[in-house]
Amino acid sequence: MSLPRIAIDAMGGDEGVRVMVSGAALARRRHEQFKFLLVGDEARIKAALDNHPNMRGASEILHCDDVVAGDEKPTAALRRAKTTSMGLAIAAVKSGDCGAAVSGGNTGALMAMSKLALRTMPGIDRPALAGLMPTLGDDDVVMLDLGANTECDARNLVQFAVMGAAYSRIVTGKSAPSVRLLNIGTEEIKGTDRLQEAAAMLRAASGLSLDFQGFIEADKINRGLVDVVVTDGFSGNIALKAIEGSARFVTDLLKTAFRSSIRSKFGFLVSRPATELLRHHLDPNNHNGGVFLGLNGVVVKSHGSANVNGVANAVNVTARLLEESLTERILADLAELGEARLRDNGSTAK
Amino acid sequence: MSLPRIAIDAMGGDEGVRVMVSGAALARRRHEQFKFLLVGDEARIKAALDNHPNMRGASEILHCDDVVAGDEKPTAALRRAKTTSMGLAIAAVKSGDCGAAVSGGNTGALMAMSKLALRTMPGIDRPALAGLMPTLGDDDVVMLDLGANTECDARNLVQFAVMGAAYSRIVTGKSAPSVRLLNIGTEEIKGTDRLQEAAAMLRAASGLSLDFQGFIEADKINRGLVDVVVTDGFSGNIALKAIEGSARFVTDLLKTAFRSSIRSKFGFLVSRPATELLRHHLDPNNHNGGVFLGLNGVVVKSHGSANVNGVANAVNVTARLLEESLTERILADLAELGEARLRDNGSTAK
Repeated sequence: MSLPRIAIDAMGGDEGVRVMVSGAALARRRHEQFKFLLVGDEARIKAALDNHPNMRGASEILHCDDVVAGDEKPTAALRRAKTTSMGLAIAAVKSGDCGAAVSGGNTGALMAMSKLALRTMPGIDRPALAGLMPTLGDDDVVMLDLGANTECDARNLVQFAVMGAAYSRIVTGKSAPSVRLLNIGTEEIKGTDRLQEAAAMLRAASGLSLDFQGFIEADKINRGLVDVVVTDGFSGNIALKAIEGSARFVTDLLKTAFRSSIRSKFGFLVSRPATELLRHHLDPNNHNGGVFLGLNGVVVKSHGSANVNGVANAVNVTARLLEESLTERILADLAELGEARLRDNGSTAK
Repeated sequence: MSLPRIAIDAMGGDEGVRVMVSGAALARRRHEQFKFLLVGDEARIKAALDNHPNMRGASEILHCDDVVAGDEKPTAALRRAKTTSMGLAIAAVKSGDCGAAVSGGNTGALMAMSKLALRTMPGIDRPALAGLMPTLGDDDVVMLDLGANTECDARNLVQFAVMGAAYSRIVTGKSAPSVRLLNIGTEEIKGTDRLQEAAAMLRAASGLSLDFQGFIEADKINRGLVDVVVTDGFSGNIALKAIEGSARFVTDLLKTAFRSSIRSKFGFLVSRPATELLRHHLDPNNHNGGVFLGLNGVVVKSHGSANVNGVANAVNVTARLLEESLTERILADLAELGEARLRDNGSTAK
């Protein structure tokens, strides 16, 4: 079976065409069998391809003039779904021409367009945005929702758990990734009613390919103790940004400290490999690629400020999700969840 | 006018009497005019005072045998308000015998007991837990609520803004500290209805001793751009713990990196003063002392794992709040808020 193509919104992201095309070309070195549909300004895409002869033969260009602006309201962008590079990349997934779309553009517009064109899977009420974060352990942790749904009910959270676990299985290779709900304490009585309800539903469900372990507090997200952290989009966005901001705060303090004396400047130079390792580990480009889960098709959001390496990571994630049939895996798990509910109802009725 | 005494729950905190008494003694070096009521096991308090003769003359001991356990449910602790060291320290504030209480014990129990004994101020629906966090700027940032109220409405958030600003005026010396609401974006349309409503109320209010500047995202909390960050207890707790956990994550990575080669070990030794500066800046003991705002009396929560320096910081915060009449300041601001509302209603009715 040949692998589906990947549609690249070549106009998205702060730097646009050059970074998107070079990033995809870099990713293709690891995933040589993939082909691409590059959507955007033909002349600029052709110019960018001149530097990547290996990519040229594997790419088709779909020209368009229109681009979704970074600060555009999703409702405004929706009206130009048929003319913009973002809209056309998603449309290529809808038509089956491509298996996935990658964009570095406006997140809200990407979500709105993807939802409208691809629709949510049967059994999913709302799609979620999932991201990978570094940990002290061997594997990245999957966290969702990162901001697609400001408010969520218990049912949404349970569906996020199933989708996040499917994503984590591909990332970690584990057959039943551990899942926890983000909360302000680990005791069963902590948090909102909807969190307690979601926990009860996940505890009761059996046959799912995940290991539900209760609640986790935000200071433990990066410890490598858990594979998937599930939360609503408001808290998830707060946690994600607090973690990013705090990491930047510490490294900024460190820079100031290292500049504070001749002695520490010298120490910094000597220990440069160590601090480079830290920089590498914390570089958001190495964890780039937020995935919209729960749609009939794969859509990956690359960070607007991602560099070539960052875009390559997002495209690598996309290729892995297609190779490992993410969508089919989630559908199979949702069927399991449905059956577990039926069994559960059956036993209650006895 | 003589300053009111400070009641110390000598049994609270992971290490109990020794740390609480030594911490108070250390704080008293900066605040020599303060006197203390030390509540707990008399024999152990006396033994601890033997190391602090300067403190002995300034302290009265109130003996009791009973202690609130760290994992005890607030409702269970409430029943022993008259026998536990925590309950008796708060009762001393209620009776007017002391101006403030400091405890390192169970946060939920401390909140429940304080609320029941001291009641909320007129004009305040719910008290909030406020904390100080380090920034890249000159002053710490005040953040509230940190977990006392899992869910809040717009009115609660507005009251938190007023109380947080009063606290920040004492911390920073500014006459109108800048205040922002924590949100998942800075555009006016972002976030929940209650956040938008709170923002509208704060924008409309005039005459308050604060400068409302709209929304802030969680990655900006520590940048030193704002004096007060206002949020509900769920998001506040998530943000606080995510920041703490991320800072620990980065410093743990740094340790691993420094241990990774002989060269970086040498570099670490040379740059030790720089990394010590970092450690000092991030040490939670240097920012210890969460304040329950909105009660008829000052109650300060010291972190359970605080060391002597940490407890000293919490007692220093308490002394400053008493010297600067925090409670009276908040009452004056609330009166202003009430008048602003009356003026507002008046103009609408025209």
